[in-house]
Amino acid sequence: MRFASDNTSGAAPEVMAAVIKANDGYDRSYGADAAMGRVTALVREIFEAPEAVVHLVATGTAANALAIATHCQPWGAVFCHTHAHVAEDECNAPEFYSGAKLILVPGDHGKMTPATLADVLARTGESGVHGVQRGMLTLTNVTEAGTVYTPTEISALTAQAKAHHLPCHLDGARFANALVATNATPAAMTWAAGIDVLSLGGTKNGCMGVEGVVFFDPAKAWEFELRRKRGGHLWSKNRFLAAQIEAYLTDGLWLRLAAQANAMGQRLADGLAQKGASQRHPVQANMQFPEWPEGAHARLEAAGAAYYRFPAPPGREAARLVTSWSTTAADVDQFLAAF
Amino acid sequence: MRFASDNTSGAAPEVMAAVIKANDGYDRSYGADAAMGRVTALVREIFEAPEAVVHLVATGTAANALAIATHCQPWGAVFCHTHAHVAEDECNAPEFYSGAKLILVPGDHGKMTPATLADVLARTGESGVHGVQRGMLTLTNVTEAGTVYTPTEISALTAQAKAHHLPCHLDGARFANALVATNATPAAMTWAAGIDVLSLGGTKNGCMGVEGVVFFDPAKAWEFELRRKRGGHLWSKNRFLAAQIEAYLTDGLWLRLAAQANAMGQRLADGLAQKGASQRHPVQANMQFPEWPEGAHARLEAAGAAYYRFPAPPGREAARLVTSWSTTAADVDQFLAAF
Amino acid sequence: MRFASDNTSGAAPEVMAAVIKANDGYDRSYGADAAMGRVTALVREIFEAPEAVVHLVATGTAANALAIATHCQPWGAVFCHTHAHVAEDECNAPEFYSGAKLILVPGDHGKMTPATLADVLARTGESGVHGVQRGMLTLTNVTEAGTVYTPTEISALTAQAKAHHLPCHLDGARFANALVATNATPAAMTWAAGIDVLSLGGTKNGCMGVEGVVFFDPAKAWEFELRRKRGGHLWSKNRFLAAQIEAYLTDGLWLRLAAQANAMGQRLADGLAQKGASQRHPVQANMQFPEWPEGAHARLEAAGAAYYRFPAPPGREAARLVTSWSTTAADVDQFLAAF
Amino acid sequence: MRFASDNTSGAAPEVMAAVIKANDGYDRSYGADAAMGRVTALVREIFEAPEAVVHLVATGTAANALAIATHCQPWGAVFCHTHAHVAEDECNAPEFYSGAKLILVPGDHGKMTPATLADVLARTGESGVHGVQRGMLTLTNVTEAGTVYTPTEISALTAQAKAHHLPCHLDGARFANALVATNATPAAMTWAAGIDVLSLGGTKNGCMGVEGVVFFDPAKAWEFELRRKRGGHLWSKNRFLAAQIEAYLTDGLWLRLAAQANAMGQRLADGLAQKGASQRHPVQANMQFPEWPEGAHARLEAAGAAYYRFPAPPGREAARLVTSWSTTAADVDQFLAAF
Repeated sequence: MRFASDNTSGAAPEVMAAVIKANDGYDRSYGADAAMGRVTALVREIFEAPEAVVHLVATGTAANALAIATHCQPWGAVFCHTHAHVAEDECNAPEFYSGAKLILVPGDHGKMTPATLADVLARTGESGVHGVQRGMLTLTNVTEAGTVYTPTEISALTAQAKAHHLPCHLDGARFANALVATNATPAAMTWAAGIDVLSLGGTKNGCMGVEGVVFFDPAKAWEFELRRKRGGHLWSKNRFLAAQIEAYLTDGLWLRLAAQANAMGQRLADGLAQKGASQRHPVQANMQFPEWPEGAHARLEAAGAAYYRFPAPPGREAARLVTSWSTTAADVDQFLAAF
Repeated sequence: MRFASDNTSGAAPEVMAAVIKANDGYDRSYGADAAMGRVTALVREIFEAPEAVVHLVATGTAANALAIATHCQPWGAVFCHTHAHVAEDECNAPEFYSGAKLILVPGDHGKMTPATLADVLARTGESGVHGVQRGMLTLTNVTEAGTVYTPTEISALTAQAKAHHLPCHLDGARFANALVATNATPAAMTWAAGIDVLSLGGTKNGCMGVEGVVFFDPAKAWEFELRRKRGGHLWSKNRFLAAQIEAYLTDGLWLRLAAQANAMGQRLADGLAQKGASQRHPVQANMQFPEWPEGAHARLEAAGAAYYRFPAPPGREAARLVTSWSTTAADVDQFLAAF
Repeated sequence: MRFASDNTSGAAPEVMAAVIKANDGYDRSYGADAAMGRVTALVREIFEAPEAVVHLVATGTAANALAIATHCQPWGAVFCHTHAHVAEDECNAPEFYSGAKLILVPGDHGKMTPATLADVLARTGESGVHGVQRGMLTLTNVTEAGTVYTPTEISALTAQAKAHHLPCHLDGARFANALVATNATPAAMTWAAGIDVLSLGGTKNGCMGVEGVVFFDPAKAWEFELRRKRGGHLWSKNRFLAAQIEAYLTDGLWLRLAAQANAMGQRLADGLAQKGASQRHPVQANMQFPEWPEGAHARLEAAGAAYYRFPAPPGREAARLVTSWSTTAADVDQFLAAF
Repeated sequence: MRFASDNTSGAAPEVMAAVIKANDGYDRSYGADAAMGRVTALVREIFEAPEAVVHLVATGTAANALAIATHCQPWGAVFCHTHAHVAEDECNAPEFYSGAKLILVPGDHGKMTPATLADVLARTGESGVHGVQRGMLTLTNVTEAGTVYTPTEISALTAQAKAHHLPCHLDGARFANALVATNATPAAMTWAAGIDVLSLGGTKNGCMGVEGVVFFDPAKAWEFELRRKRGGHLWSKNRFLAAQIEAYLTDGLWLRLAAQANAMGQRLADGLAQKGASQRHPVQANMQFPEWPEGAHARLEAAGAAYYRFPAPPGREAARLVTSWSTTAADVDQFLAAF
């Protein structure tokens, strides 16, 4: 009954096994390890992108901030959703690394729309040197509201950005969950939909701590390497990052882990719906924001459930519930029983 | 025969076992995990510093850059040795995080002296707002030349800094090797010698990737936490960093690992000396810079030895050789035989 | 009929005379000139603040950005109005100098209210290290909408900030205009209303290019001096800045200049009202945003009027009109006639 | 007898007259003023560079720091002389604006040589992502030692940089003095000698406060404009900067002013030589560093002379003496008499 976050779960057995195996003997450091070549090959195959380059870091904030800094000048605007992780949960890291300014794009259920984006784009960068210049677009999928963009929706947004010649980043901290939710291919969700650079999340979905930054246009990859080192994010024993992501991407493990997380999310949402709870946003992946009448918090917490309380109107209670690769049907059913 | 760097070795079995154990079940994220409390207790006990605060990051560059940024204003000067890792091997990370300027202090064998430091201190910060202000001192132990400062030597240097009210940082990427080399206690080498903040290395000495930043004055620790997050260095699954450092510091493992590395360094130096090699710097820990007549590079590399070649005068060859916790006597003897 | 901005006018004769006089002979550089002492004395007297410290820069963006950087940490939030100059017209300068994040506070007619500020304050800095910390408040008076805060209104806003122990800055690019509009004393509008640091505008109101940064708490002044030099804003021939501001503040010149600008603004507004134009915001100082039926733009521009067109609903036209110290009644009347 | 610095003198009468004239009436702001077009035409003609772009700022530190930031990435190395103004006298401004690292190149009498530069270039940027990358070259002419590079010497240095594809900047705070000293044309001293961007000093040589940044390759000029605004260095009433530089460059005024400064420097040096003083560096322009037997400081200062004392060996005294456009033969002779 641990639904506080998908980062309170551990690493999947296959990932842990790969880390143990990677510990054998000596290996070259700073990314010249043998596994890193295999990771690149895997990414190129899975994304159907033979020129793609991937580099690894240990945290999602580093992946996002470095990817953004590599694509946006210090006098640029980074267009992101009002409640994007980069805007609300990274303590200025994107600004620290890039010098750029985040410009917030509204939209219901955590998603900007072509109309809201077009509106903000039109109002930005129109005052010469006095204001920031249009810089880049960053989307998050799965969103912070637990909703999911389809490839078609992403294409419609990147088209707005491309009309202004802006590069497009996808924060995929829960990228596998988004793929499973939409049944899209990795290619369809990224470069085929106009994404230039992807933060490919591993940590929340069964790794210890690893994120890939995937460049579909390799021209920026060397700059990224310099920024990564300058940010202190280049691991000397990079083999331990590479081993995680290699196992994660091998034989579809990442999708199986995400499928379990999403399925448990759905099971939880279905159960709550039967018991009268409403949802603030459509439940489409592994994160939900149910609301119910007062009283359940006390029962659930007494039963040992862990999750974040959210503000609610008088007489009501609200929560954020996140399922993960390690959530079991028994966890969900026990929660529902306590509810 | 892998002597390229101590970061080409893997993790010690005890560390790996701890990581595996840490993977059991759920744990709170972002440093609120159970192990982190035990790490703090261990650090306080080992350093005889009941008020010390420790935070973890995954790389040495992050530890140094964040520690420096926390103690030096953007208009300050960071006094470091001419060949310090922070000056030569971190791609401007200390400057990126702090905004400060590194002012180089010369000295033979990788060590500044009270006289060279005093000289540079006297010439810095004397021109009002026009130049940088004196900011802080950072020392490295084991130095980049493989030599070691004793606590007495450190005290003499920090005294120079304290005369200007400057905080003092110790880059201890190879701190355990320095302790073993001098037989000093952790306390004697740090706060008792005037050190305010320590980068406590784990990665090079048998961990996967973890460094502690130890604040003997806890007043700066909260600022460090904000800077760590803003730099993207706060792990969501911090338990995997905490598990490493907990195992590392438990029952003297860190000192045993360093003792092996140092002993193998000495065995290698002794063997090379018997075969006529000279050393550029005194061999005091686990890194050495031997020089020998032309020809050995080809023999050694043919035999499978891996290490960095260094420039040498005509007719001579030079190398950097680093031993680690996993170096065996057989490795050393095989190298000497090939030599 | 030049109403594009108060910065299209030149310098007042008294200011120019002072600059010419300052050019006599030699003087000490970098702020050690004789006039600078007199400027400090004038500021202390006029603001009834015997401990105040004032430093000079040449642009308003520099004054604001440096004042903010001196009072807000890089992980802090700067609370400002949605349409503040620091947010919209300084090309990220405040973020560049401070590293901080601007958090926008809404409010009609360019003014935040205690309620809108309290709401944003309550929602910021509540997520530990994950988000920015509450940093400081910055207000603008005259606002970007041409409206004016009274001292009482400022006090109510700074009280909200002080409840969170935040320092408060006032962007007074048009400070004299605000004083004239409210008939407040400089003290009442600043430190007595909770303002810690003031950007005291000279450029828009009859100087060539000079702004004072006034610290009511002198503790931060030395840091400002270092930041000013590091930003390249310390003049070697500071006497030419000091001469401007000395003349400006002597014998009430600044208030006379602002009174003329405000009076001409009122004359213009009255005339437009008589001719059926509406105003988007109350006209309280020297900047207004009238709206009128289609057709007047063409007539006015044909007659030689210069100003910024603003977007308007179908069938309507809108403008920003700014009067200055050098606007004459004839200018206004000619504009009204052409209208 | 004011020899402390050329920035203790005022503005030349022609410059002041131009400022007064520029004050007439209204003009467009932020660099769209009429004079700015004339300044561009003048620069293109004088430098025989029909594509050159010039932008103005008020201080030399701003000119240098912005020019450097426009040409060097944050992970780059800026090669400059050990005692360059950008290294010693700008409180980290170049690093603040660029994020880059200054790498010091030694050389006698304030001048690097092809050999010292080649040596430092060869030792920099050879360690992949671990160290800074070679970024750009910046030279100073007149140097901080009062010596002067000839165009041939500059070409030999920029050739070293160009071999690594590095852009080259010239800090010309005393550019006119260097031209006069070498009898070189502006073109020969800059683009024809491999200089890509010039800080064209006005302040020290008879202006109030203005420096041009001249881009011989206009491709970088727009980025400069954004950086200038973001740094708070764009003047709203830019006409007052443009007027100064227009007058300065018209009819050779700048060269006449520099010729007077240099001639007075030579007269002073000759007089001191006759009285037995030695010089630390060759006297080639308007700044000198004489040394003499103990006792003269007291006599000179009693007579009202103002200058900087420099450290000297026991029994000796040393000084920095700077002459300017406003130094008269009487000033010099009075100094010599007092000596």
